[in-house]
Amino acid sequence: MQPKSAAILPPAQTAPPGSSSSILALRVYYEDTDAAGVVYYANYLRFCERARTEWLRELGIGQQALMASDGIAFVVRSVKADYLRAARLDDALEVITRISALRGASLLFEQDVQRAGQLLFSAQVLVVCIDQRRQKPTPIPTHLHSLFESLA
Amino acid sequence: MQPKSAAILPPAQTAPPGSSSSILALRVYYEDTDAAGVVYYANYLRFCERARTEWLRELGIGQQALMASDGIAFVVRSVKADYLRAARLDDALEVITRISALRGASLLFEQDVQRAGQLLFSAQVLVVCIDQRRQKPTPIPTHLHSLFESLA
Amino acid sequence: MQPKSAAILPPAQTAPPGSSSSILALRVYYEDTDAAGVVYYANYLRFCERARTEWLRELGIGQQALMASDGIAFVVRSVKADYLRAARLDDALEVITRISALRGASLLFEQDVQRAGQLLFSAQVLVVCIDQRRQKPTPIPTHLHSLFESLA
Amino acid sequence: MQPKSAAILPPAQTAPPGSSSSILALRVYYEDTDAAGVVYYANYLRFCERARTEWLRELGIGQQALMASDGIAFVVRSVKADYLRAARLDDALEVITRISALRGASLLFEQDVQRAGQLLFSAQVLVVCIDQRRQKPTPIPTHLHSLFESLA
Repeated sequence: MQPKSAAILPPAQTAPPGSSSSILALRVYYEDTDAAGVVYYANYLRFCERARTEWLRELGIGQQALMASDGIAFVVRSVKADYLRAARLDDALEVITRISALRGASLLFEQDVQRAGQLLFSAQVLVVCIDQRRQKPTPIPTHLHSLFESLA
Repeated sequence: MQPKSAAILPPAQTAPPGSSSSILALRVYYEDTDAAGVVYYANYLRFCERARTEWLRELGIGQQALMASDGIAFVVRSVKADYLRAARLDDALEVITRISALRGASLLFEQDVQRAGQLLFSAQVLVVCIDQRRQKPTPIPTHLHSLFESLA
Repeated sequence: MQPKSAAILPPAQTAPPGSSSSILALRVYYEDTDAAGVVYYANYLRFCERARTEWLRELGIGQQALMASDGIAFVVRSVKADYLRAARLDDALEVITRISALRGASLLFEQDVQRAGQLLFSAQVLVVCIDQRRQKPTPIPTHLHSLFESLA
Repeated sequence: MQPKSAAILPPAQTAPPGSSSSILALRVYYEDTDAAGVVYYANYLRFCERARTEWLRELGIGQQALMASDGIAFVVRSVKADYLRAARLDDALEVITRISALRGASLLFEQDVQRAGQLLFSAQVLVVCIDQRRQKPTPIPTHLHSLFESLA
């Protein structure tokens, strides 16, 4: 009978100084794979969404709070994705996220999925700020826009 | 332009001394939730499978290696699950995993999902060791059985 | 250039006369499988939920309408599931759903997943009627209870 | 106690004469939605993959048979997707699939997701024929290429 230490993910790495990218470390589980033995293609978008959420959380931005306080939400408007190499069961992956363009009511993210420094998947994700009640695009609130600008 | 530190999960906690349970910390993302605003009921089984996989990994057991070297796999034979309280978007959860019974060809896991110490979900998962080629139950290899026994 | 007829699922079968069970036909796609080459274990619960939803829809009950008109929802309280044989990519499956017990505020479903008449998975799913606002169990409205009773 | 007829999906519709597109009808279940009350963005790619699989099946092409007999597989190389309107719980959707370009070793699909004739989602999916053993692009076998050509 021994105490077992907790299972932990590999330590997340710090982005290089001067960069504004954020890195999310994750592990590939059975749920992520399919009968071809690789990560199912739609699941890379899950990984990217987790990474954007953590990117916001790092900035101190809670998506539920945004909805409650500002009545806004960030929704995906388009995705361009390239599948370069397959990720597999048990792989330790990193999702690298950075803003590549900032406009009045939208953000363009560049997101890469890597395994041991090798690029597996790359996506451009256009996210639009919408007014939740009207379900229409609305300008990103000034305090957020300035924050994003400082990172772009 | 500031360097951004990497997004990390909340630090996994150590099980109390004397216990052989393992704890996996995880975060609830949009992908885990449904239109009722809570974690979709099938996804608790995903969380539990992640936790069992990390539990094996902690013990130095890779499931792909097991298949390659011993020709065996651990498969779920039955699940009993109780849904007590709903987990929600952004929740920081812990999956606590321990063996509650060990037999010649099977393992019974007790797995709890908690949020801030509050029990949300509890499951008993019976996992059977199978011979991959014959797809039939087979005794757990001695070296693994001894290892599991030391934890039970 | 030929007109292509629409892709359709295999025709759903009718339950035997005198029975009150309902059958949902479904196909196994890549998204349902995992790297072990079989349907991922949590996904049988997805299949069962689809079947319960269609069972309600057949009875003319819309879950969103229930929430709007009666302020109630049916939520899963517990699951007992047995995994007997693995379903695989491209399998045509049937989910057979029936009520096995009806109480004042809850329903017990028996749900089987079959392939060509062979039982692969069997579950008992306890579903509780809750008051959405208070998030507490509440009696099943009389008109629904009578309807369920006529089927049990 | 009444016999219950089987739950069925809405009847799949036939593509207009002269067209070579294929239509898959599907229903939105809880599993497809997220806490924002809409279909989770990655799940549109699941819907598209189901539709491509059914499109192949209609043509008499089984993906597992292709792997066994020809040693080839079709894998997604890139996706461009536009999210126009949100699909919601219980929606009856149609995925319309057609080939928009055919090359020696690849196929470009146009896939639209509609609800009652209204376009919700549109994607271009580039699928490459690969040699399974070498995991490299390989020409589409002649018999398939001719078949696809007759549809393009």
